[in-house]
Amino acid sequence: METSFLIDFEPVGRRGHCPSGRSLLDCSRQLGVELINVCGGRGTCGHCRVQLISGPVSPPTSSEMKALGTREIAEGYRLACQARPLGNCKVRVPAESLATPQRTQIEGLEVAAPPEPVVRSHAVQLAPPALPDPAADSAQLLAALRQSGAICHGIDIEVLRTISPRLREWEWQVSASVRDGEVVALGRPGDRQLGLAVDLGTTKIAGYLVDLDSGQVLASRGAMNPQIAYGEDVMTRIARAAGATEEAARLQEMVVAALDQMAGELCGEAGLSPEMIVDSVIVGNTAMHHLLLRLPVEQLGLAPYVPAVSEALDIKARDIGLHFAPGAYVHLLPNIAGFVGADHVAMLLAAGVAHSEGVVLAVDIGTNSEACLVSDGRMTSVSCAAGPAFEGAHIRHGMRATSGAIERLRLVDGEVECHTIGGVPPVGLCGSGILDAIAHLRRAGVLDATGRMTEHPRIRTMDGRREFVLAGEQEGRPAITITQQDVRELQLAKGAVRAGVQVLLEAAGRSEEEIDRVIIAGAFGTYIDVSSALTIGMFPPLPLERFRQVGNAAGMGARLALISRSRRAEAQAIARRVGYIELGAVPRFANIFAQAVSLG
Amino acid sequence: METSFLIDFEPVGRRGHCPSGRSLLDCSRQLGVELINVCGGRGTCGHCRVQLISGPVSPPTSSEMKALGTREIAEGYRLACQARPLGNCKVRVPAESLATPQRTQIEGLEVAAPPEPVVRSHAVQLAPPALPDPAADSAQLLAALRQSGAICHGIDIEVLRTISPRLREWEWQVSASVRDGEVVALGRPGDRQLGLAVDLGTTKIAGYLVDLDSGQVLASRGAMNPQIAYGEDVMTRIARAAGATEEAARLQEMVVAALDQMAGELCGEAGLSPEMIVDSVIVGNTAMHHLLLRLPVEQLGLAPYVPAVSEALDIKARDIGLHFAPGAYVHLLPNIAGFVGADHVAMLLAAGVAHSEGVVLAVDIGTNSEACLVSDGRMTSVSCAAGPAFEGAHIRHGMRATSGAIERLRLVDGEVECHTIGGVPPVGLCGSGILDAIAHLRRAGVLDATGRMTEHPRIRTMDGRREFVLAGEQEGRPAITITQQDVRELQLAKGAVRAGVQVLLEAAGRSEEEIDRVIIAGAFGTYIDVSSALTIGMFPPLPLERFRQVGNAAGMGARLALISRSRRAEAQAIARRVGYIELGAVPRFANIFAQAVSLG
Repeated sequence: METSFLIDFEPVGRRGHCPSGRSLLDCSRQLGVELINVCGGRGTCGHCRVQLISGPVSPPTSSEMKALGTREIAEGYRLACQARPLGNCKVRVPAESLATPQRTQIEGLEVAAPPEPVVRSHAVQLAPPALPDPAADSAQLLAALRQSGAICHGIDIEVLRTISPRLREWEWQVSASVRDGEVVALGRPGDRQLGLAVDLGTTKIAGYLVDLDSGQVLASRGAMNPQIAYGEDVMTRIARAAGATEEAARLQEMVVAALDQMAGELCGEAGLSPEMIVDSVIVGNTAMHHLLLRLPVEQLGLAPYVPAVSEALDIKARDIGLHFAPGAYVHLLPNIAGFVGADHVAMLLAAGVAHSEGVVLAVDIGTNSEACLVSDGRMTSVSCAAGPAFEGAHIRHGMRATSGAIERLRLVDGEVECHTIGGVPPVGLCGSGILDAIAHLRRAGVLDATGRMTEHPRIRTMDGRREFVLAGEQEGRPAITITQQDVRELQLAKGAVRAGVQVLLEAAGRSEEEIDRVIIAGAFGTYIDVSSALTIGMFPPLPLERFRQVGNAAGMGARLALISRSRRAEAQAIARRVGYIELGAVPRFANIFAQAVSLG
Repeated sequence: METSFLIDFEPVGRRGHCPSGRSLLDCSRQLGVELINVCGGRGTCGHCRVQLISGPVSPPTSSEMKALGTREIAEGYRLACQARPLGNCKVRVPAESLATPQRTQIEGLEVAAPPEPVVRSHAVQLAPPALPDPAADSAQLLAALRQSGAICHGIDIEVLRTISPRLREWEWQVSASVRDGEVVALGRPGDRQLGLAVDLGTTKIAGYLVDLDSGQVLASRGAMNPQIAYGEDVMTRIARAAGATEEAARLQEMVVAALDQMAGELCGEAGLSPEMIVDSVIVGNTAMHHLLLRLPVEQLGLAPYVPAVSEALDIKARDIGLHFAPGAYVHLLPNIAGFVGADHVAMLLAAGVAHSEGVVLAVDIGTNSEACLVSDGRMTSVSCAAGPAFEGAHIRHGMRATSGAIERLRLVDGEVECHTIGGVPPVGLCGSGILDAIAHLRRAGVLDATGRMTEHPRIRTMDGRREFVLAGEQEGRPAITITQQDVRELQLAKGAVRAGVQVLLEAAGRSEEEIDRVIIAGAFGTYIDVSSALTIGMFPPLPLERFRQVGNAAGMGARLALISRSRRAEAQAIARRVGYIELGAVPRFANIFAQAVSLG
């Protein structure tokens, strides 16, 4: 009888018995966990990186030593194509190694925090009112809550609107959700208290349904931000909403409807009701924050880019049209500046950089990009006007990260090897694929340091434009190419990030080499190949092991602020501490940027 | 040349020159102030009672001494038909002496309180934001407010929704209305801060627009409660709203629309905008309170008549659909029991009985009636199920107090003398007229002590019912009569009040004679002739000078709570202090009530 081992892939939660002698990559395929793999299992592309949590596996191969380095090996990182289980194993799949047909951008950094919810539930037993002096229902509830030790001064009006029939239906046994002395929801004793954490991105929305008492995530889900129909970038949406009350209302209603739908789906998945959501934290960039709350945005779109609101807010969910528990609040983390928003604060919270020793650079790369440098205990942030090139916009064959998009690519002996999302024939390039393509063209000398295309058999001229053919015409599908113009677009985008980092370093009086750790977060940052990013000079040239890709850290930050009152306070402390540099006001910026666009 | 004097009637504010030698009644007619007068100026009916504020008048006549008593004479009270100005005079017309074509029930007790508003305005000057570090608009405002000494932790979301364009339009000069640390409205420096006080009655609504900083009433107005179309009494409305969400919503929308309209009219009268209403106090009985807030009422309509809510509430005006300043609150005074509501608390607050020495009885008589006995510093209240007879309901020729209603009546030598509202030919009897009619029939012996009709030339039998003809058929109008059944209805109504008082006295261990003062408040109580009420035994037989009619004291209480934070707190202290006796739970009540219906 053939030996088999129980292999458990986390956090996707797939497990099953796999025959001995197979690689972890084989096991993952058998169990339906799709790892990214470009080199065909030869151990050279380094994309199928996983982390061993428990169990015996074969010793690291020389390819692994080369691809991962001693530090990662010591932390348990392995290449799935090389490592073979020698017994039952538990393996963590980092978000960046996971190829999902529909990327949800919900996975990422997992940070535990002891649950310390702002809303607490208190179960009490009341008595049916009787003559001669029947107490009002609200008065009896408040008295019982106070007797049970809860500090309680009032009951939300929407809760009051159902209190009498509910108390009678539940035969005077009730659990009250109390937030800062206010009853925001009633339930039966033992009912779960739910929380919803949301990362509201310009392009995508990530939602997490959380059990507030345990801190456990019950369900998570990604969705497109429906405002995309009104403009892909924030400036277009600001222009539409500014001065036009109806348009602003429509933009708000769209995103509120999407959040309500997401809440409904998440609760449906967990077999619960959105009426049980008693608290919520939503983070987004300043524009998404303002559009969600229908705050004025006209002044946000004009220099000096002034937010209407920067402080943290607690707003009744109903005041923005959300249908949660009757008296539920939405907490919004503070914004820092017009283009450094609450999502950046959430990312910094999750990354835990506020207490870092040494010099730490935290970069959030998505449709909008921000960078923060922590040095000598001081935190300074910039917004990098990288534009939407990382999302595939303005790129000849660019596309979003969906099925058919090339997300990993390498050039071997003049031949192109690529991996598409969903494993289907390629139809275009998403951000990480573009980055890989340009990095490999640079390594192969097809691009010079200025970004100019030199000579190569795959370069052709179409309509007067030079382009490198990644995949030829096939079965009626057009060729997929990288044009000279695409290279320029990406240079501007990556140059914006690099220049932002450079300004931060100069302001802190630090050199690149002094950076001890680089944290890369965000939708795009999650999936890029860091070595490709280094090749094109997107980040300072530092050893690979100093980089850490943490996935959707803003979503994690929202979850932390949701389950923990002290984390919520910490987010506010971070926002107060972070200094902001407006790049437009830095005299040397034009020079710095001009240097930063070089492909190094 | 004939001498003339300047005569000033307050609070109606009519003044003008009147020839010397005329009575104050003549002067009032000349200036369009309609005083009630039944006896034709003979000084016997005592209805044209006014109070001299300043100026010389003729000495009191013997009729005045008889009608008013030495105490009232000492306080400056006079009969307008007897007193003649001897120079320029200022005269106060008590509400009960004023016959107005459309009674607004807004006048009443005037109690001054030092303004101590819950919402305070703070004017600040901000700076236009500029690079390199432009502060968010909200952050700059909060910082400036804190620097000006205001305790301020946040800004209402609806205020935030207009903050940026407003600050720019007003060139960074702004006045913020701050309530308990929250900015609830923005205005230009110098803008008035308005408050709205409302007595929301079952039948009528009285509204007062107040300048919060001075405490001055800028305009006042009365209106019908539009819910009347859904039932004249509270029980009918409770039955409609109970269990039917749509009906409850419609009842609420009706009254909210009426309040919005009233706010608009009051502000229009003062040349201001409802957006400047930054605070509001609304009082009503428990049912009106619950219907306004769309609280559950089903349990309120069934024994033991449990309110959903009894504690004082602060609710955003927008949460009940009112259109005031963006973040304005409505404060609702506490309820005491299912049928002793916030309007009773407001009446007690205005009457100032909480600190009374001796034994004080305060009775609020309207569509619903309540009584409170203050004795040895203890306060106890009952609700008297008097029914709607005082409003003219269930009375053969009963009607509301509008044009053509007989409001004063007396029987002299078998002849009926009457005064109608508007001075037009009579079409029916309103509450005070019914009371007068029955009192005079009793005095004339037409009714015996049990209420049975004896013999009289004006008594006839129609359709088997005995009735006393007050006014015969005339010009096609039917006769106006008092039927035996009408007498019974009024006996039940007045018996309910008297029995309530009796229960209070017994509970306090007091006798009737020990009552030092009787305060009569409320719509109906304002206009009745106290001697008529005493004749029929509606109140304990006490000397007339122990009674005081204070008009709409609930409205005054609402105004006090509006302008003064400490009065608001006092209202809550009163509600906590007041003991409640449910008459249905008093074993001897049936006996007491049976005795109380006697016409004495």
